[in-house]
Amino acid sequence: MISVPTVIADLVQPVEGAEIVTWDVADEPSRSDVEVIVVPQGPTPFLTRLDELPQLRGVILSAAGYDDVVQLLPPGVALSNAVGVHDTATAEMALALMLAAQRELPTYVRAQDEGRWRPQQDRRSLADQRVLLIGYGGIGRALAARLLACETTVTAVASQVRDGDEYVERVHPVSDLPALFPDHDIVVVAVPLNDTTRGMIGADQLALLPDDALVVNVGRGPLVDTDALIAECGSGRLRAALDVTDPEPLPDGHPLWHTPGVLISPHVGGGGRAYPPRQARYVTAQIEHYLRTGELAHVVATGQEE
Amino acid sequence: MISVPTVIADLVQPVEGAEIVTWDVADEPSRSDVEVIVVPQGPTPFLTRLDELPQLRGVILSAAGYDDVVQLLPPGVALSNAVGVHDTATAEMALALMLAAQRELPTYVRAQDEGRWRPQQDRRSLADQRVLLIGYGGIGRALAARLLACETTVTAVASQVRDGDEYVERVHPVSDLPALFPDHDIVVVAVPLNDTTRGMIGADQLALLPDDALVVNVGRGPLVDTDALIAECGSGRLRAALDVTDPEPLPDGHPLWHTPGVLISPHVGGGGRAYPPRQARYVTAQIEHYLRTGELAHVVATGQEE
Repeated sequence: MISVPTVIADLVQPVEGAEIVTWDVADEPSRSDVEVIVVPQGPTPFLTRLDELPQLRGVILSAAGYDDVVQLLPPGVALSNAVGVHDTATAEMALALMLAAQRELPTYVRAQDEGRWRPQQDRRSLADQRVLLIGYGGIGRALAARLLACETTVTAVASQVRDGDEYVERVHPVSDLPALFPDHDIVVVAVPLNDTTRGMIGADQLALLPDDALVVNVGRGPLVDTDALIAECGSGRLRAALDVTDPEPLPDGHPLWHTPGVLISPHVGGGGRAYPPRQARYVTAQIEHYLRTGELAHVVATGQEE
Repeated sequence: MISVPTVIADLVQPVEGAEIVTWDVADEPSRSDVEVIVVPQGPTPFLTRLDELPQLRGVILSAAGYDDVVQLLPPGVALSNAVGVHDTATAEMALALMLAAQRELPTYVRAQDEGRWRPQQDRRSLADQRVLLIGYGGIGRALAARLLACETTVTAVASQVRDGDEYVERVHPVSDLPALFPDHDIVVVAVPLNDTTRGMIGADQLALLPDDALVVNVGRGPLVDTDALIAECGSGRLRAALDVTDPEPLPDGHPLWHTPGVLISPHVGGGGRAYPPRQARYVTAQIEHYLRTGELAHVVATGQEE
């Protein structure tokens, strides 16, 4: 028996031989024969009570991050995260922020509120910009596809050097960043937050960017040093478009709110209406895999004996 | 001798055998041996004095529209408009407006001005939307490429039925529009303004769109009936993102400024920094063509004897 949350219940495709029940993991388990749980987005207190399910074999998350769930797994229970499910929405948000910043949409929204027709004369474009993608997983690749259609160049950087693909000739190592910063007009940060990546874009890195460069963060706020960013944008030398901030939520009165050249959206990159169909496709594939092999795909952890 | 304006003088590639002079057509002609003039953007009063150039054979405009220039051509002088030069910038603006509207960027700009972290819970996407492109020339094709990378579907409509291409299976005739409107979430209008197209999106057409549909106009303001649009957006049934308006410039106090769900940019779609390199490539190709054949390409009119 495989349980799926309400939001995708009607979207998961039938898989021959699969028994599926709709369950939002919100209260008591509806039945004790659940082997695989698909956990919905948001807080799920029931995850502390997984040991009440005697037949549980696997847990499939709706988020990419999973660190806080590993310790809750009963022995032998496999954990899969949501691979690829949020890539489309997050890459789309990055593109929306980049286009809004390049094409001055915040200026026009404010002019509209004042009822004033006020075109900019010297107008930036996204086309022809040299974009540096820091992080080249699912989000990075989804963004690269969009950017190439928008006539930019794309340089990819990742923690693990790997071959290129249909979008980039090669994937650069992080150690290439100091040499790459001066030759790029837009930098997009989309990597996981960990001890290695925290503060990876600080004053030294920002100083290497050319004047008027745009810093886009759709990863996690602490990847970028907020004080350094405020200094570089406040002087008018750089610009920023941020879906994540440090601290987050950004508190009332924080100077980042009103730093010139900074566009802020309140961590709305992932999820949204693009999420259910993609989660449903992923879960359908997981169910097929489980029925065929008796195991989940994309296992990132397994519960250990205490 | 071929004259080119300052803004692209350094970008035009050398063509063997071509004599090129930089001239902005602003004052007296710098020399009387000009055979081909590349006219810069903006007002060019000198165009009324073309008969002062005894060797003139051709005029190349920087704009797509050319109606007001035809009558100024001396007998036998060919006129070429700017084919494709503004497609990138205009398609990019349409995409920027669509993404901003779908991802609620105006809401976030206003929240930022208030210093408030206020994420929307039910979030639209551009991905998965069914986009109807009315007008499938250079702008339409440039937009189709971007939209497909953004995981939308694209339906193309044009005045002349033609075969499909790498983006769409077929190009629908305008007569298909009534049947197409109900099945599309986003409608983009990018056709020239003429007696046939004026008001082509009126109350009857808007009424056929599904609830919450987005109307995008990057063509000319009078293609869309402003009063009908205000009625449908004011009621909250439809939304709009407009780079052009009717009247234009939109005057202070016009109700369109503050109609709910309407995003307005002040006719800044074309031009900008994407323009000079594309104009330079077009002019380079024109120069090559002229040297090879003795004539311009993309001739849209020739001066007649009076």
